[in-house]
Amino acid sequence: MTGSIRDYGMVPGHLPTGPRNKISDVAGVTVGHCTVDQGDYHTGVTVILPGQDNPFFHKYTAACYVHNGFGKTCGLIQIEELGTLESPIALTSTLNVGKVQDALLEYLLDRCRREGQAPRSINAVVGECNDGRLSHIAGRPVGQQEVLAAIGSATPDFQLGAVGAGRGTICYGFKGGIGSASRVLSLGDKSFTLGVLVQTNFGAPGDLRILGKPAPNPEHIQLPGACDAGSVMVILATDLPLSSRQLRRVLRRCGVGLARTGSYLGHGSGEIMIGFTTENRIPSEENPFLPMTILREELLDPVFQAAAEATEEAVLSSLWAAESLRGYTGLYVPSLREVLFPSADGEGLRASPLPADR
Amino acid sequence: MTGSIRDYGMVPGHLPTGPRNKISDVAGVTVGHCTVDQGDYHTGVTVILPGQDNPFFHKYTAACYVHNGFGKTCGLIQIEELGTLESPIALTSTLNVGKVQDALLEYLLDRCRREGQAPRSINAVVGECNDGRLSHIAGRPVGQQEVLAAIGSATPDFQLGAVGAGRGTICYGFKGGIGSASRVLSLGDKSFTLGVLVQTNFGAPGDLRILGKPAPNPEHIQLPGACDAGSVMVILATDLPLSSRQLRRVLRRCGVGLARTGSYLGHGSGEIMIGFTTENRIPSEENPFLPMTILREELLDPVFQAAAEATEEAVLSSLWAAESLRGYTGLYVPSLREVLFPSADGEGLRASPLPADR
Amino acid sequence: MTGSIRDYGMVPGHLPTGPRNKISDVAGVTVGHCTVDQGDYHTGVTVILPGQDNPFFHKYTAACYVHNGFGKTCGLIQIEELGTLESPIALTSTLNVGKVQDALLEYLLDRCRREGQAPRSINAVVGECNDGRLSHIAGRPVGQQEVLAAIGSATPDFQLGAVGAGRGTICYGFKGGIGSASRVLSLGDKSFTLGVLVQTNFGAPGDLRILGKPAPNPEHIQLPGACDAGSVMVILATDLPLSSRQLRRVLRRCGVGLARTGSYLGHGSGEIMIGFTTENRIPSEENPFLPMTILREELLDPVFQAAAEATEEAVLSSLWAAESLRGYTGLYVPSLREVLFPSADGEGLRASPLPADR
Amino acid sequence: MTGSIRDYGMVPGHLPTGPRNKISDVAGVTVGHCTVDQGDYHTGVTVILPGQDNPFFHKYTAACYVHNGFGKTCGLIQIEELGTLESPIALTSTLNVGKVQDALLEYLLDRCRREGQAPRSINAVVGECNDGRLSHIAGRPVGQQEVLAAIGSATPDFQLGAVGAGRGTICYGFKGGIGSASRVLSLGDKSFTLGVLVQTNFGAPGDLRILGKPAPNPEHIQLPGACDAGSVMVILATDLPLSSRQLRRVLRRCGVGLARTGSYLGHGSGEIMIGFTTENRIPSEENPFLPMTILREELLDPVFQAAAEATEEAVLSSLWAAESLRGYTGLYVPSLREVLFPSADGEGLRASPLPADR
Repeated sequence: MTGSIRDYGMVPGHLPTGPRNKISDVAGVTVGHCTVDQGDYHTGVTVILPGQDNPFFHKYTAACYVHNGFGKTCGLIQIEELGTLESPIALTSTLNVGKVQDALLEYLLDRCRREGQAPRSINAVVGECNDGRLSHIAGRPVGQQEVLAAIGSATPDFQLGAVGAGRGTICYGFKGGIGSASRVLSLGDKSFTLGVLVQTNFGAPGDLRILGKPAPNPEHIQLPGACDAGSVMVILATDLPLSSRQLRRVLRRCGVGLARTGSYLGHGSGEIMIGFTTENRIPSEENPFLPMTILREELLDPVFQAAAEATEEAVLSSLWAAESLRGYTGLYVPSLREVLFPSADGEGLRASPLPADR
Repeated sequence: MTGSIRDYGMVPGHLPTGPRNKISDVAGVTVGHCTVDQGDYHTGVTVILPGQDNPFFHKYTAACYVHNGFGKTCGLIQIEELGTLESPIALTSTLNVGKVQDALLEYLLDRCRREGQAPRSINAVVGECNDGRLSHIAGRPVGQQEVLAAIGSATPDFQLGAVGAGRGTICYGFKGGIGSASRVLSLGDKSFTLGVLVQTNFGAPGDLRILGKPAPNPEHIQLPGACDAGSVMVILATDLPLSSRQLRRVLRRCGVGLARTGSYLGHGSGEIMIGFTTENRIPSEENPFLPMTILREELLDPVFQAAAEATEEAVLSSLWAAESLRGYTGLYVPSLREVLFPSADGEGLRASPLPADR
Repeated sequence: MTGSIRDYGMVPGHLPTGPRNKISDVAGVTVGHCTVDQGDYHTGVTVILPGQDNPFFHKYTAACYVHNGFGKTCGLIQIEELGTLESPIALTSTLNVGKVQDALLEYLLDRCRREGQAPRSINAVVGECNDGRLSHIAGRPVGQQEVLAAIGSATPDFQLGAVGAGRGTICYGFKGGIGSASRVLSLGDKSFTLGVLVQTNFGAPGDLRILGKPAPNPEHIQLPGACDAGSVMVILATDLPLSSRQLRRVLRRCGVGLARTGSYLGHGSGEIMIGFTTENRIPSEENPFLPMTILREELLDPVFQAAAEATEEAVLSSLWAAESLRGYTGLYVPSLREVLFPSADGEGLRASPLPADR
Repeated sequence: MTGSIRDYGMVPGHLPTGPRNKISDVAGVTVGHCTVDQGDYHTGVTVILPGQDNPFFHKYTAACYVHNGFGKTCGLIQIEELGTLESPIALTSTLNVGKVQDALLEYLLDRCRREGQAPRSINAVVGECNDGRLSHIAGRPVGQQEVLAAIGSATPDFQLGAVGAGRGTICYGFKGGIGSASRVLSLGDKSFTLGVLVQTNFGAPGDLRILGKPAPNPEHIQLPGACDAGSVMVILATDLPLSSRQLRRVLRRCGVGLARTGSYLGHGSGEIMIGFTTENRIPSEENPFLPMTILREELLDPVFQAAAEATEEAVLSSLWAAESLRGYTGLYVPSLREVLFPSADGEGLRASPLPADR
């Protein structure tokens, strides 16, 4: 185990974290990975389950925010229209979205069937980053088996770093991956949790800032192109009573967290935020009127702060946890830890340049 | 051949049509179908090819407009962000979007490879309607073979009605399907064409208006539920020099055409418009600056009118061309022609009720 | 009194109306006009009061929808962001928006002061149509006195037609103005009302449809330019328990009502919809959590239908109620009634052409 | 003259600046202020003129982006719809928007009249921040005389700091105001300039970061409430050949610059970005087709970087240039310079608390 950046005194923001400092501090949320790491493939799938019951029967109030739409994420327009999430959220490699969407759908159809219904329409949500610099992306090896494996392994104590959908990503020239963080808020006399999970594949080499300070960018890593390409997915969960409109406002502040890590949110980097709350769920019963509880708008400020802080820390945690990786073209991408604390083994010196992308 | 509504004196709007009165009157545009009509399946795929060369290498200026986002269409957020289309547009059944997206991607990857490139990111665009009232939707029988067959059969003289992605759709309680229409505009001393293709699966029974007049809604067709569900996809092509912002304004007026046919654009009916122009294409060369030509904004009025008229007529043409169909549950959905001009064979009398949807 | 189109057997849609068939059928809603009709001025202001208490202290859940943003309406971005309305809605002439906004603000500041508070930020909402073809628009004669007069005269039994903000508007080549209609809905065991008020200044001459049928467009009225310019404002009120997201979905269907009257929603015609509900109000107390009640999404269909029907009838009612007017340039714009039922006085024959606009 | 933060070695970002390091490095752009600083008033108006000819006759390609719509800015919906700017942009105090809009309109109407036209519709654009903590905001002292004075004084060498619309603003608990910065880009064999002007009234006390490092926040300044309220307006100008869609993408990256200064973009802080290019202007002649030149999309990255950097530096320059101010309630807000480099005069010690806002 590699610990966290907090073990080294790096504490992003002011608010307290939940016990795991992960999105799974929001009660009910679990995350599963399936990593595909064979031959030319360094890729995978990560699934965020908002809860344990069937989300199609008991939908979640949700929202999305597209900061940069250069991406292939599917399922967003229905979230935007109806303000609800009715499936787990899967993350994968750009060109694998269609196959993963179909696999997630099959999982949901099957689950509904086993629970006695046969829906004719389900909105399966799949996000993506482009891991084509390290993995043979055109091969699209993530299918039904991998999606089911990821769902089957979902747990609150999931792994971070170069696993699942983060297996082949690059972030600021370092090895990226899956990161997560959480914040705890007191409002009125209650305590609430907000958690973030990121798939990091963005940031130009040389631009990384850790708590505002430039990270070392070793001379010997010849990273061609300063372009901020590749995308980042941000999944936000909370147990705060919010409307979808409010969730969307919260999601916009995740961009603040991204910016704090140094990125200018480049052209080629699709930044997509998807959020849901475990409060205000939509039951299937036939009552025409649904009671909801909404946070007073003026009290959103600490929520915005929590979203910004958790996103910043989630990005850093993805970098911290990710192991170095040599990709299918021979490109070696070092871990942040390796560069911050170079060891004697010299692997870090055998870096080869990143090829141009897109 | 069934002729068209114009043969019966029904002429929607004022503007002249192109020679085919189809989207393919826009030079270069072709359409192909593959219909899956076996066992419980009455479904298929329809592909609109914006031109004959590789759209990924030579992108189209494009736009989209989501009137009602209750739908699973994929590829829209990138069109919205970048204002370009880089793939054919496929239409299919709601739950088949993932498989068709993957098949369309494979087609494009393969085509790029054969033409000497290996892209790591392509935005494949797939729209959908829910044909689950007539076809066993959970089966998702449309795959790679069907998508390639549809592309392979693309022609300017494509069929309308209950074919391809329109095989299992229902429109105002009648058999829906694929419809198309075009309009010709003179601006300055030049002539331009605007064409529309629709996949019609919307409209509450009893609401259909033909040129403003209520269509007959025979008593013996017991269509339960007045709900306007099911979706309609509108694809618009033109050779007018427009920007993506202007195309988006044009697409909004397609909703006028839909409304003219009687619909109030119901909750369950995802209305999605996607448009492109064959002018202002984006070449792959390295010139940093691209010349474009834009229509003066004040001259958009006839273009708006053309979009409204062509959409109205395209919907009516889908109804006119579609043959009656008995679905996998025994539900019989009559063609509009059969109801307007009842024949002696009595098939129209054997109607059974539509099941409740969604 | 001129009666209504219903007296002549013209009944738009299927749903029952409220007792007044006006927006004021929603309990608490009142409307006041101040008409400025002297010299070159044929203009005015119309104010919609959502209730009798101070809207700044007890805000309304609200939404807006910009179908065509070619307009100068102010206050929309805050409604969009916060989902609330905290002022009456004033309608006036395009170039008078700034002065009316300031006057409405002064009214609210003064009212708050008298009720013991001194707010430093109020979002005053003002919509507009361009009445410059009949009134000397650059003069901007509507100021504080007129706004206070309109507010002071607000009543549920307000006048329709060429009054207030509708004094100088033109609709489909006929005299436009203020129109209104309402619909009553039963959901669960309760009854709800939805009302619409319009300021009509849109529609190309010759395009008007009354219940789907072309309206007469007398030869002797030489209206140059087929352009659909000038704008239409749609204000929607309801007592249904809706969220701002749902209200926005409802507002989109007002465009269906506009389209049914024949318009293709032209380039020069800013179409803006603003809606609020008298349920789900936001009190000023300090409770951090607000209870709300939301209509089940699947039940929105009759609400959409009501919005479409009420908008269609409101447009027709504005045409029906408006008296003919000769503008400051000598342009005579006939009332719809005069053209449908020409009288012997011959005034209708002295029509002069509309000048080109914008 | 106070110099700039660059004199103290603080250089935000990597790109070179223009000669003035102001928005006026974009050829043609000038800025004028009128400061109202008497009695209870510490407010004013700042006008950005995109060029010297009449913008209504020769419109600018433009865009806007609303990051947080809690604000009263007017004129945005038409910019969004048509992608053009046809007036100077005025900035002022929140409650003064209506009066300033009307004054700006009068200026434009008068100018058009003198140049031989009488337009019936002009979209005057006015942005705002809430200076009510230092100035008696309900009084609205900025009127026609002040707007004309600001326009009349417009120059490329305009003043920064607590002047014009920045007279009464507060930023991170320090005195805010008007800031500006520019960046120079080489694309192809040409050189381009991008400039930003900000009106800064945002940021919670204690959150300010200067080049990533926390700024001192002296103990004796008791600033109650950590809330990030008050708004920031960002005006961006460039001579790059961009479309309105591209400009909108650029404007989104201004939020990165704001975030770099430490803010989480709070609930109460309306963040509005408005941008235009001096290329791709829209002439009034009657040619139906307009030639435009568009930057290849892949080359936007340095433009995004320039927008982020210039916005960050513009915020810091507003803080640097602003003098300390004691407001109408006795509240003393220190300048950043005074706190960074405390002098012997002790004025900085006489700080009184900020009152709660909104």
